[in-house]
Formats: sequence, structure tokens, C-alpha cells
Amino acid sequence: MTSLLRPGQRLWVEKTVAYGWSGARSLPAVRDQVDAALAGAASTGWQGLLAEQRGYLDAFWARADVELEGDTEIQQAVRFTLFHVLQAAARAEERAIPAKGLTGPGYNGHCFWDTETYVLPMLTYTAPHVVGAALRRRHTTLPAALERARQLGLAGAVFPWRTVDGDECSAYWPAGTAAFHINADIADAVVRYTAATGDLVFEREAGLELLVHTARLWHSLGHHDQKGLFHLDGVTGPDEYSAIADDNVYTNVMAQQNLRAAADAAERHPDLAASLGVDDEESVAWRDAAQRIVLPFNEELGVHEQSAGFTSHQVWDFAGTPPDRYPLLLHYPYFDLYRKQVIKQADRVLAMHLRGDAFTEEHKARNFAYYEPLTVRDSSLSAGSQAVIAAEVGRLNLAYDYLGEASLMDLDNLERNTRDGLHIAALAGTWTALVAGFGGMRHHGDTLSFAPRLPEQISRLSFTVQFRRRCVRVDITLQQATYTLLEGTELEIHHHGSPLTVTKDAPCSGPVPAAPDLPEPQQPPGRAPARRGRAAGHSE
Amino acid sequence: MTSLLRPGQRLWVEKTVAYGWSGARSLPAVRDQVDAALAGAASTGWQGLLAEQRGYLDAFWARADVELEGDTEIQQAVRFTLFHVLQAAARAEERAIPAKGLTGPGYNGHCFWDTETYVLPMLTYTAPHVVGAALRRRHTTLPAALERARQLGLAGAVFPWRTVDGDECSAYWPAGTAAFHINADIADAVVRYTAATGDLVFEREAGLELLVHTARLWHSLGHHDQKGLFHLDGVTGPDEYSAIADDNVYTNVMAQQNLRAAADAAERHPDLAASLGVDDEESVAWRDAAQRIVLPFNEELGVHEQSAGFTSHQVWDFAGTPPDRYPLLLHYPYFDLYRKQVIKQADRVLAMHLRGDAFTEEHKARNFAYYEPLTVRDSSLSAGSQAVIAAEVGRLNLAYDYLGEASLMDLDNLERNTRDGLHIAALAGTWTALVAGFGGMRHHGDTLSFAPRLPEQISRLSFTVQFRRRCVRVDITLQQATYTLLEGTELEIHHHGSPLTVTKDAPCSGPVPAAPDLPEPQQPPGRAPARRGRAAGHSE
Repeated sequence: MTSLLRPGQRLWVEKTVAYGWSGARSLPAVRDQVDAALAGAASTGWQGLLAEQRGYLDAFWARADVELEGDTEIQQAVRFTLFHVLQAAARAEERAIPAKGLTGPGYNGHCFWDTETYVLPMLTYTAPHVVGAALRRRHTTLPAALERARQLGLAGAVFPWRTVDGDECSAYWPAGTAAFHINADIADAVVRYTAATGDLVFEREAGLELLVHTARLWHSLGHHDQKGLFHLDGVTGPDEYSAIADDNVYTNVMAQQNLRAAADAAERHPDLAASLGVDDEESVAWRDAAQRIVLPFNEELGVHEQSAGFTSHQVWDFAGTPPDRYPLLLHYPYFDLYRKQVIKQADRVLAMHLRGDAFTEEHKARNFAYYEPLTVRDSSLSAGSQAVIAAEVGRLNLAYDYLGEASLMDLDNLERNTRDGLHIAALAGTWTALVAGFGGMRHHGDTLSFAPRLPEQISRLSFTVQFRRRCVRVDITLQQATYTLLEGTELEIHHHGSPLTVTKDAPCSGPVPAAPDLPEPQQPPGRAPARRGRAAGHSE
Repeated sequence: MTSLLRPGQRLWVEKTVAYGWSGARSLPAVRDQVDAALAGAASTGWQGLLAEQRGYLDAFWARADVELEGDTEIQQAVRFTLFHVLQAAARAEERAIPAKGLTGPGYNGHCFWDTETYVLPMLTYTAPHVVGAALRRRHTTLPAALERARQLGLAGAVFPWRTVDGDECSAYWPAGTAAFHINADIADAVVRYTAATGDLVFEREAGLELLVHTARLWHSLGHHDQKGLFHLDGVTGPDEYSAIADDNVYTNVMAQQNLRAAADAAERHPDLAASLGVDDEESVAWRDAAQRIVLPFNEELGVHEQSAGFTSHQVWDFAGTPPDRYPLLLHYPYFDLYRKQVIKQADRVLAMHLRGDAFTEEHKARNFAYYEPLTVRDSSLSAGSQAVIAAEVGRLNLAYDYLGEASLMDLDNLERNTRDGLHIAALAGTWTALVAGFGGMRHHGDTLSFAPRLPEQISRLSFTVQFRRRCVRVDITLQQATYTLLEGTELEIHHHGSPLTVTKDAPCSGPVPAAPDLPEPQQPPGRAPARRGRAAGHSE
């Protein structure tokens, strides 16, 4: 195409590009799809496409934005997070959301538990339709997971630790196959999405089946001991500096929720459950295993063990580990890491976030204080989770530091590997640190609760979440929190433990109580997060 | 060479072959060596060579033979054992004794703990000069073991699980590097050889150094807990169906002996010990760790745990395991084997043989009864050790069955892999089952003891052992045992717990007490050893 311009004349060139890909359809079919997309785009025109895109994003920002006052860097970071997580997930459709999203070749496009545990929780309350699609996509890989369980001599489904299309791609079984918790993580995402949206069509078409087959896995993987207690032996939890241990608390509380959720869902859909072969014997057995599951506890220390025996292991020689030997996995053999008290990433602490309903406040405070000095954060997944529990136990400055680490991971290239792609799950941790950390948002069962409390550096935090066809805006200052219903019918929420009914008539508010005054937990020498926005060494 | 023969005339052809090999010397040097050997052989002549060989073997048989009445098959098997083990070891010199000896390509010529734990004990009492050479050979690999410890961040020496020339050749660390017990196994062979021969030259030139560097390993590998107990976490014991466990009893009792033996040897040779950097602080620390080392015990079951937590694991579904799925490691994933109560080979039971001094009679009987139904014998190393403890706890028919399995492993090609070479360590188990099993021979500290007791199918068992420059012949019948000193000065031995002095003047005898009457232990379904020489199902 050529065009002759006279001086002063302007040429407007519109180039329309369509992208199509398929691992299943024929090349002509893919070409046809792309041709149709191009024809549609040409018919809509540039201004029309722009308006569509703007409309999509405006609707997203209106229901998902997070705003804060007092830290423009984190304001930028959380918007960067929201955009990139949406970008990675919005059109994933029948494909996994990979660890690097659409941004780089890191992990060769593989998908991990990151999706269900770190990415989908944020999307559940900001772009729920995307989550339904992602979980339906997991559901399409169920045949491979059922076959994998059969290979391993187990009932139900064993989802892959590392995968592209549903088959296990991990070559190192102690931190691959043995990390069975991914099955409970998928169930957790199903439970959260279903409870947050009431999407019963999804539950009937995919959710129930995911819950039933993962519950069957736990029941066959575990066993009762002589005293009738239920154990899950020889598994690997989130912390990759331990492996093949008995009764990992994270795995056990997540499996407990999985077993109960499957029994509950089977009760809601008895016809469908019966067609999957679930009878009363089976659902009672699930509830029994959930009730009797063991959470190892060290009575003398007053803390839960990450796994049975963990707190009796030797503590890693942190003082003798020079700074240039982190991350430890590149400098020390696994035989040594596995047998000592040293933690790569939030494990026991992550359990206290996702299953906050399973632990008392006292245990949360004691556990956080115990595990904090053992956790080196050699995984980018860790900081966001530590921020959440640091905030819950009142260590607001520390939570703020962890928020800084999670949110600047890629903007500041903290791990020096952003060239491989963004850390999508760590980015999602920025949202989680703000909303679940300083907003104190939890969602257990049918209850949406908030326990907001800001660090002194953030004077105001506002965010909007979607919950059961409502849209709720939360505005937090150092003194109080205000809840505004933007869309939908009235909703009962909890504010610092007290029920509040949010209606469209007027916002309602609650005061922010003072944080508990607990001792400052210590990190391993040299592994404290960078102090953010206050004098170094200043204590709260 | 040609020769013209007339009818009736005989031609005598002597062909002399020499074999030489070196990984270090030049080809001309090896050729010179071989040429010299050929010249020497030609000078000695066929009859001279024959006489030399006959003299060597006559001397061996005179001091090492085992004779029995009532089972000609086992009589043949134990002679086959003695010949092949000698053949594998006698000229190994500066090379390892590989798992298949000189008989086949199995394991690619690699050497394992088999040498020190199964082969050398037999040779210590039958051809001790060979043992000194084999242990000096291990000593030549000490530099590689010191370097390996340095790589792993440990003190002392870490000897390789699988090796040709001293470097670790195992590619699977949970059952390679983590099987640290090989270090205590080497120390055990050093302790036994030194105590059985009084070879102080060896102790000064190699033994002390082996003990010191292995003791240093244990001290740095372990740690004290809050109560002051000493633990060895994250290790793999002999049983390869468990891995990376805490406080494996076998490893801990063997390490305990290692630590004490190093301290004892350092006291005997203070000058040499000082030159190795051993001071009083270090040897006291070794003795302290040995004293405080933990042996996990399940109070409710009244048995030692193979490793911490083992007895709480699910018992393997033996009833649901078809016969064609053995050996289990070829049909089930390690994730499943590791987390259940299923044992490949004697582990806890082997500890009761090698460290018989560390356990009471009652514990031996209870432990044997507990572990027997869990042990599938997917390793050829197992039957001989089970025979020893079966005999000790009075299950003589069962011991006899295990003896049959160990001794016919290759003669009857029981594992269908004798084409890959003989199971040298399993063969040695034949001798061990007879001498340590029915002869009840133990050697702890300076004491050589016997607790003979025969199964009804063997009417007489005689064997000769060498001990501290003596040669003692032991003749056992169903009623009594007679000890005859063939060479050397008088010696105090123990017979069923009572001291007896054996002199050259006359044999001395002791009665064989009745076996304790304990319940018959069960093996996993289908995994009982073949019944030998009595009606099937007949109980003792």
C-alpha cells in the first residue's frame, strides 16, 4: 500500500494484528480464527477497539483498584501488580497461568501452586470471572491427575507440582510429587471462589469433582495410628528447605479443609455426588479424617512444629553463613538443609493466613515469633505471606518492610532476574499484603471479615473487593475503617470481630484498635527485609 | 613352536599366563612387571606353582574351614562361600573388594558398605591378613573422603556410598550421601580387625586415622537438643525402603561405637593422636556424644523405632501386594515406600548383631518379633543377618531357613541374576549365619563369646576361627560345644555367658541350654523364607 502525501498532510495508519494458537486444531482452522478476528477488528475500527479495551479496564479498576496515601512507590507497585496479574490471567482461558505470566521465559512456561495459592485469591475478589475460567482449566486436566494417582497407587487425583498441560514435569520427586499440598491448594481456590461468588454452575460442572477427587487423595494418602489419630506421612510442605516429613502442619490443615469442603459440597449436590460414587460412608470418613488429623505441637516451646520433629532439629548456623551464600540452595546440599531448622519460605506462617480459622491468636503470635528467625526468604513467594501475619500479630513496621520487598521485587529487580519474566505470584503478594495484611481481610466459610490496622507510614488505604455480587469499598485510616457498598444488596461483614451490616444507604465505620504490644521478632542475621520509610534500627 | 609326535608319544604343554594392570604406572612398567612374573613362573615351573597354590589354600582351609553334618547342600555352599570370598579379597591389595568380587559385571565393579559390614567380618576370623590390606586400601582413599566432607560442610571424613577409587559415584543422594552409616561401618571393621589381631602397626599407620576422621564426622553431623540429647538427623540407614530420617537406631549405635573407639584409640596413641590435632576437649566431646546419643523407643509397643517416628507410620499393605510385585522397588515409587512401615533389609535387626552389647535380651526378642513381619528381604544382604538374630532369640528353624536362602543365593540362582556375578556379601552371610548364628559367636571389646545352639536338622557344626594369634576350633552338637586351641597361648572365651579358658592341654566343653520358648514371628505374606528340611507348616 502506497500513499503520496503533500506537505502538511497527515497520514493515519491503522495496523491490526491478531494472534491465534492451538495445540489441538489444524493450521487452517487457526488461520480462519485469526482471519475472523482481523475482519472483526477492521469492522470495529481503531476507535472502537480502543473504547472496548478502555471499557474493560475501567470496569476492572472500578471494582479492583487499591489506593494509598503516604507511599507513592507502593501506590505504583500495586497498580503494576493489578495490571500484570490481570494481563497474565484474563485470557488464559484453557491454558494454565504460568509462574511468569506472559512476561518472560523463566520456568519454561511451567505452572505451579503459585496459581491457586497466590494469584487466584487476589483475582477472586477483583476479577472473579477469570478465576472460574482458571479453575475450569485445572478441571480439564483431571484425567491426567486421576491417572497419576493410579500410577502412584493412590485414590482420587494427584495434580502435578510442575506442569504445562496436566502431566507432572518435575524431575525431583522429594520437592515435586511429595509436595501433595498442591491438591489442597487447588481445593482451597475452589472453596474460596465458590464461597465468594456463589457460582453454583461452576460447582456442579467442575468444583465438586475437584473437591471429591482431592479429598479421596487425602483419605488414601493418610492413615490412622493406634490411637485413632490421622496422619499424612512422608510429604513435602511449601518450605523447600525441608522434604519428606510427617504431618506437615500446612499440608494437614489444608487437607482438613479439603476433606470437609468435599463432604459439604457432596451434601449440597447429592445427585451429582452419587454419580461420582460418593456415599455416606465416604463422606463420613472424610469428616472423620479431617477431625482426627494431627497438628504436631511442641508443648515445651508452645509452638506448632512445621512438621513432626522439626523443632528438635539443629538450628541452621546463620551466624556462620556469609551473605554471598544466599540463596542457600545454590551453596549448600539439600541433605544439610533438610535436616536443620532453616526455612526457605512461609510454610507454618502461610497456614496461619489461609487457615487462620484453625489457630488461636496466641498460637499465631507464638508461631510467628518462633518461625521468623528461621525464615531466610530464598523464595519470592514468602514476603507477602509474612507481611500478612506480621500485620495480624501487630508488627506493622515489619509488615510494611515485607510489603516493600514483595511489591518492588520486579520494579527494582531485587532478585536480579526480572529479565526472565515477572514474579507474578510475588506481585500478587503486594495486593495480599495490603488487603489481607493492613486491611486484615479474611474469608473463612461464609464470613468476610476485616481487621484493618495501618503502619504509621501509610495514612490512608482504600480498596474495593467483590463478594457475592456485591462490590464493597474499604477506606482505612490510622483511626478508623469505613465500609461502603458500591453494588449489590446489604451484606454482613466483621470488623475486628464485631458484625457490621453494610447497606447502600450509608457507609458504616468502626474504630481501629491499638496493636498488641509484642516483642519484635528477629530474622536470621542479614536476612531482615530492607527497612522502609523510617530510620534504620528504629523499633516500633 | 612345533613338535612332531610319533604314535604313542605324549607331549606335555605348559602355558604360563601373567596378568598385570595399573591405573598409574606406564605401559612399559606394567609390561616389565608381567615379564618378570612370567620369568619367575617359568623358573618355578608347573609343579612348583601347583605346590605353592596348594600350600596357600591348605593353610587357609586349616584355619578357616566350616564343617557340618546333616545338610550336604549347605556344606557345599559354605565351602563355595569361603573359596569365593577369599578369591575376591586375597589379592585385592590396593583395590576395593567390589560387590561382585571377581565374578561378573554387576554394579559395574563398584564397592559399597558390603565390604566392611559383610565381607570383612568373616575374613577377620579366617584370613585376617587380607582384612588389614583391605582397610589400608580404604585408608588410601582418605584424602577423597576428607575433601567430600569439606564439600558437604562437615568435619572429618565422609566415605563414599558407592565408589571405585574413593570418589562418591552414587547419583541418588537420599540413598547415597545420606547413608552416612558407611563411615561407622568402616570404623566397625577397624575396631574388629584391631581387636581380633592386635595389629598395632596397622592401628598406628591407618586405623587410628580412620577412627579419628569418622568420629569427627559424627560429631559435626549431630547436635544436642534442648535436653542435652545427641541426635543424628536426616540420615538413611541400611534399609533402603526408608530414607532421610532422624535418629536411625542402626546408625546411632554404630556411630556411638565409632566415637568411643576413636577416643580409646587416641588414648592408646597420644603422640599420634596429638599429631592429628586430637586434644582432650575433642575426645571428651566424642565420649559425651556417644553417651547422650538417642535411640528412639516406642514405650507402648516396647520396641526401638528403626528411626524416629517409624512405628507410627502406616504398615505397608502386604496382603494387597501380589507376589509378582516384588522386589517392591521395581513396582512402587519411593515416595510410598519411604513413608510406610516396610523394610527392604535387616536394619534394626542388623544393629542387634553388630552392636549386640547395646541391647538387652528382652529388647532383642521384642524387636525381632516386631520387625520380622515388616521385612521383605528385597536385598540379598538381609537373610544372613536375620538368621543370626533368629538363632539368638531361639527361632532355630527360622534361622535355618534364612541360612538356606543366604547360602543358595547363587548356587541355586535364587534372584535369577547370578549371571551378573556372585553376591559376595550374601555369600559371606552363609558363614555369618553358621558361625554367628548357630555358633553364636560375638566379639565385643576384647571378649570372644559363643552361644551355640543348633537346629534339629544339623547334628554337628565345626568351625575354626583365628583370634589374637590363636586358632580355635569349635565343635557343636545338639547337646554341647567343645573348644579346642589349635595354635597359640591360652585364651578366655565365654560360652553362653560363662567364662571358659581354652588351653592347648585339652579341649573344654559346655552344655547347650534349651532355646527360649517364644512365639513364632511372622513374615509378610508370601515373604517367608523357603522352609528347609522339615514338613511345611511344622512349627518348632
